[in-house]
Amino acid sequence: MSQPQSKRQKTDAQYELLYHPTIPGRGEFIRLAFQATGTQYSDVANEDHSKYKLVQDTCSPESTGDKDGNPPPFAPPALRVHGAGKDGKSLLLSQTPNILLYLGPKLGLAGSADYEIYHVNQLALTALDLANETHDTHHPIAVMKYYEDQKDAAMTRAADFRENRIPKFFSYFERNLKSNEGSGQGKYLVGSKLTYADTTLWQVLDGLFFAYPKEMQARAKEYPLLFDTFYPSLKAEKWLKEYLDSGKRLQFSNGLFRNYPELDRQ
Amino acid sequence: MSQPQSKRQKTDAQYELLYHPTIPGRGEFIRLAFQATGTQYSDVANEDHSKYKLVQDTCSPESTGDKDGNPPPFAPPALRVHGAGKDGKSLLLSQTPNILLYLGPKLGLAGSADYEIYHVNQLALTALDLANETHDTHHPIAVMKYYEDQKDAAMTRAADFRENRIPKFFSYFERNLKSNEGSGQGKYLVGSKLTYADTTLWQVLDGLFFAYPKEMQARAKEYPLLFDTFYPSLKAEKWLKEYLDSGKRLQFSNGLFRNYPELDRQ
Repeated sequence: MSQPQSKRQKTDAQYELLYHPTIPGRGEFIRLAFQATGTQYSDVANEDHSKYKLVQDTCSPESTGDKDGNPPPFAPPALRVHGAGKDGKSLLLSQTPNILLYLGPKLGLAGSADYEIYHVNQLALTALDLANETHDTHHPIAVMKYYEDQKDAAMTRAADFRENRIPKFFSYFERNLKSNEGSGQGKYLVGSKLTYADTTLWQVLDGLFFAYPKEMQARAKEYPLLFDTFYPSLKAEKWLKEYLDSGKRLQFSNGLFRNYPELDRQ
Repeated sequence: MSQPQSKRQKTDAQYELLYHPTIPGRGEFIRLAFQATGTQYSDVANEDHSKYKLVQDTCSPESTGDKDGNPPPFAPPALRVHGAGKDGKSLLLSQTPNILLYLGPKLGLAGSADYEIYHVNQLALTALDLANETHDTHHPIAVMKYYEDQKDAAMTRAADFRENRIPKFFSYFERNLKSNEGSGQGKYLVGSKLTYADTTLWQVLDGLFFAYPKEMQARAKEYPLLFDTFYPSLKAEKWLKEYLDSGKRLQFSNGLFRNYPELDRQ
């Protein structure tokens, strides 16, 4: 799945991603940062489903922290970084944008100038907000209840999402690509090379193509930098093409992004 | 409102907060970081309501960036930092947690050890998620529609929020205080001194006391570190007491936190 960078064995990776198995979900934003940079990492519960218990224990609603002195996470994904915490013990991080923020400079995905990491971060945060709002279209009332039990509210919320929120978000990303066109040529949001803002936004757009195919087809022509340049050129980058072709990338199904045709443009 | 730290005049502050006037909203999380550290800043639209146009222009849905080469924000709040951007020009930042992340180390609100900023950040992100979920209880369907037009959905969502989400979030913060009790004595979430995780969580709890007074009264006894120690001890800190007593703090009304008695515990 990734190229080894050190002598560590796969079972002894520096980076351990702790997330639910089988679904892309929020874990995929972190996987993409590793994939884009050929960084070795252990995807604990996917490599061995029996290890899902480790994820559950780490993120347990009873946890008051781990043996290395780390505070408890709110929810998966979490990332354990061996040797990076207190007194050389492990560092445990949670919250998707926080994990990306930590990895960004270490993996060379946070821009060049010092201040660029904040522009990368604000774009990634906004892309993740869009992912959350996409989730809320199929679960507007209660995350733990079935879609079928909140379908009426979902229909109304999805209509608002398509008519008002999608244009607001897409306009923002289009204008950011425009703002950076001199350096990024429409291919990169910040500066002249790939950052975790790009990988994160790409995954959200790809999820939206799965969840709202008709809406996306209709909207694509309104945002030419986003859909004629950014999305396809990133998809064609060698590392992403190989990852998508490898069959190792987890498929969208019943998670953050869901395809309910009745929520899509009719 | 704040103590000057330099020879700059108030109208020439290094930090310019660009946010809607009259409401606390998401701007208040940033104001609290300045207040806690006696840092001079300009609250542009509140100091002079006629300057709200500057906020609107900066965050315009047509903007492709400013004259200093900064990318456009998604929405207020934004922060302009004079002299901190490209070639000594201004740096413009957006996204509340991103602005706090930038200010944290500069104002001494990001912990001590290098890795602590990531623990501070993950806690602040989760507190801001709780603020967003509070907002969504009164606007579960569409942010731009009236509450009255989504009241039925709001009633159902608020019930789920009170019964499931509030305990999940409060348990998380209680366990973080427990995890850090040796250093923070229940007063601080990370380490032994104030961070922006504390100021951010405090403001969210205070907003919840305004929005859901009955629910909060019932819940308070379940989370002793959070409500017997953290919330009151921070409220009693000299800087916060003075700020609250000054009358300069903007009051909750019809923003992120709203008091609709029918959504509260009955």
